[in-house]
Amino acid sequence: MTEIHSYDPRQGHGLRHDPLNAIVAPRPIGWISTLAEDGVLNLAPYSFFNAFNYRPPIIGFSSTSWKDSVRNIERTGQFVWNLATRPLAEAMNTSSAMVAPDVDEFVLAGLTPAPSVKVAPPRVAESPVAFECRVTQIVQLADADGGAIEAWLTLGEVVMVHIDGRLLVDGVYDTVAAQPILRGGGPADYFEITEAQKFQMRRPGG
Amino acid sequence: MTEIHSYDPRQGHGLRHDPLNAIVAPRPIGWISTLAEDGVLNLAPYSFFNAFNYRPPIIGFSSTSWKDSVRNIERTGQFVWNLATRPLAEAMNTSSAMVAPDVDEFVLAGLTPAPSVKVAPPRVAESPVAFECRVTQIVQLADADGGAIEAWLTLGEVVMVHIDGRLLVDGVYDTVAAQPILRGGGPADYFEITEAQKFQMRRPGG
Repeated sequence: MTEIHSYDPRQGHGLRHDPLNAIVAPRPIGWISTLAEDGVLNLAPYSFFNAFNYRPPIIGFSSTSWKDSVRNIERTGQFVWNLATRPLAEAMNTSSAMVAPDVDEFVLAGLTPAPSVKVAPPRVAESPVAFECRVTQIVQLADADGGAIEAWLTLGEVVMVHIDGRLLVDGVYDTVAAQPILRGGGPADYFEITEAQKFQMRRPGG
Repeated sequence: MTEIHSYDPRQGHGLRHDPLNAIVAPRPIGWISTLAEDGVLNLAPYSFFNAFNYRPPIIGFSSTSWKDSVRNIERTGQFVWNLATRPLAEAMNTSSAMVAPDVDEFVLAGLTPAPSVKVAPPRVAESPVAFECRVTQIVQLADADGGAIEAWLTLGEVVMVHIDGRLLVDGVYDTVAAQPILRGGGPADYFEITEAQKFQMRRPGG
């Protein structure tokens, strides 16, 4: 008989660490570049990120406070998502530093801004994949009683895609070859993936 | 010099497969149980799922059509998220079958409904982690021109958490021990994770 640990989060988890971000894990990373109205570049990773629709492609991330990225997107309507990879892990982590709005995290992390085609914010030249996005919705989250939460889900349509040609094998994107990194739980856990961890299941009737 | 493949998704990707869900990958899975108003159980996996806030814990998934799960949540206000694990992979996949609303996917997949504490929909007894949720927002997505998209982001507050005690080591949740599975790209790719794929980086100044 297995013991089940059950708790109401509003009453506290009763554990050493809040397990939430270790349970919904590992997660893809939203590495977002934006431009402030005064032209200052911003780059920051977000742990609560995903795609939400195929056609048109919609992606989004949640900012658990009104961070520079959200302020910039709210004012300019544009952002770029960059793929965080194993070779770029340290640079991605450096770009997560809490710094003043006038600090350019590209400089801080030793990264090169590459011009975008359809939006003003540049992409990370060193990253093998980038999505240029136009904002579609910024949704302030609410709790189950309807109260506003200090978290904003920022959604955008992908209007331009850039993929390093080496990741395309016969016109099919190779996820493992891109070496994406994923966010785990706690303050420091990340995961990489390998071919050995891949398996396949076809949807019934699919 | 690397060739970069760039495209505007509205003009087509020019590849053999749309790479979107292979790029934003691997992703945690939203395995959602709901109850219809007439009491019929529903269980279905969603590929566009994540957490979005810590306190209170908010999770959500996108349904790229008005599926039974969303209809049930819109009418009853409640759902349960269940962790999809390697031992449950086949059952999770079976529950993704396109079937009529009166089909109970618990029966279809050979799973046991376990009663929830704070909501009516049951959790999957065989899953080691479940979140009981009350809906907070159902957001229809939009494109960059403001046009409505046939996709609904369904968000809920986690009001009760259940964790198999074997996954808690000295009060810390062990992500790898839970054997979560992740969704990759294409019609059939999934990933599991192992301890060997884990690495750690502390946030600067953290």
